[in-house]
Amino acid sequence: MGRTSDAKERLIDTAVVLIRARSYTSVSVDDICKTAGVRKGSFYHFFPSKRDLALAVVDSWWESMQVDVLDPAFQGDVPPLERIQRMFDRAVTLHSKAQQKTGQFQGCPLGNLALEVSSQDEVMREKLDHTFQQFSAYIENALKMGVSDGSIPPNLNVRETAQSLLSYFYGIIMMAKTANDSRVMKDLSSRALQLVSAPLA
Amino acid sequence: MGRTSDAKERLIDTAVVLIRARSYTSVSVDDICKTAGVRKGSFYHFFPSKRDLALAVVDSWWESMQVDVLDPAFQGDVPPLERIQRMFDRAVTLHSKAQQKTGQFQGCPLGNLALEVSSQDEVMREKLDHTFQQFSAYIENALKMGVSDGSIPPNLNVRETAQSLLSYFYGIIMMAKTANDSRVMKDLSSRALQLVSAPLA
Repeated sequence: MGRTSDAKERLIDTAVVLIRARSYTSVSVDDICKTAGVRKGSFYHFFPSKRDLALAVVDSWWESMQVDVLDPAFQGDVPPLERIQRMFDRAVTLHSKAQQKTGQFQGCPLGNLALEVSSQDEVMREKLDHTFQQFSAYIENALKMGVSDGSIPPNLNVRETAQSLLSYFYGIIMMAKTANDSRVMKDLSSRALQLVSAPLA
Repeated sequence: MGRTSDAKERLIDTAVVLIRARSYTSVSVDDICKTAGVRKGSFYHFFPSKRDLALAVVDSWWESMQVDVLDPAFQGDVPPLERIQRMFDRAVTLHSKAQQKTGQFQGCPLGNLALEVSSQDEVMREKLDHTFQQFSAYIENALKMGVSDGSIPPNLNVRETAQSLLSYFYGIIMMAKTANDSRVMKDLSSRALQLVSAPLA
């Protein structure tokens, strides 16, 4: 039991690393099995297809985002707007460390999969869309608390503002990946909170 | 001469359509040749490899973005900030029409390629990075004109603000692609100009 569980985890962890470094389509089941040191028979025992593994990658990455970025960032020890900025700052730190380790700014697997696979795989698209909505809900909840405590104007469209902050989050990751430079994400993340105001007339 | 030029154009146009609908890696030279009605020998006459065609796709798309979106949006008949909003609006209209035509929100090939290929192909990454910088320069020039005519505060960091607007542009395209709904891009694009102000303290 211990060994088979290990194999499943290893397959998921390996897929995260390989898909992030390359892309979903360019990584084969063979690549993943070889790198993970797991036999192909075991792979298909856990995952009917590469796509099923990719769906598990989304869950795994989202879980680690919650543990490493969102849950600590959105703790109530600072005002709501500071929590949102802290989310950006924590993500910048993790992406910077990953770049130091791999020599590349590889971005977020969720964003990478969204642009690579969304138009080809409806199940994956819906899963990513649902995950982005959960991500947006973290931000929206903080905005609502800010409206409640008076630190954010009451007429703010909290739902759309949360979506705009999430869009910005993924946009600056794209620019940093294209520049292969985490400093791009760092510099631009300091401008995120400008999106928290009523739109200009 | 006319026929061979035709074949080259057909290959590029077909590659734009196929790569946009699927992804770079999942589209083969065979797929492109079959759909374009061009023999493989002709393909390799024009392009040493699929990657060379993909580089031509970037040029072709960027040229059409300039003609269809940027050059008309940034004309001087309205104040600079309105030009930037017009850029978003024109892009929304084109993506909406494309969605009506294909049944899918397929996004921008430049953004799709950036996330799919940047970490695997340094030549492509640099080309996309350079193209994004040209795109950002359009926005930055408008911001500078706004500073000159007094419609934008003089202390604005025009370079970083332009990059933040470009990031937002690509972020809302990602959200719309993941939702498969151009209305997401439309709704969020109305908030773009909030990024044109000094960062909150």
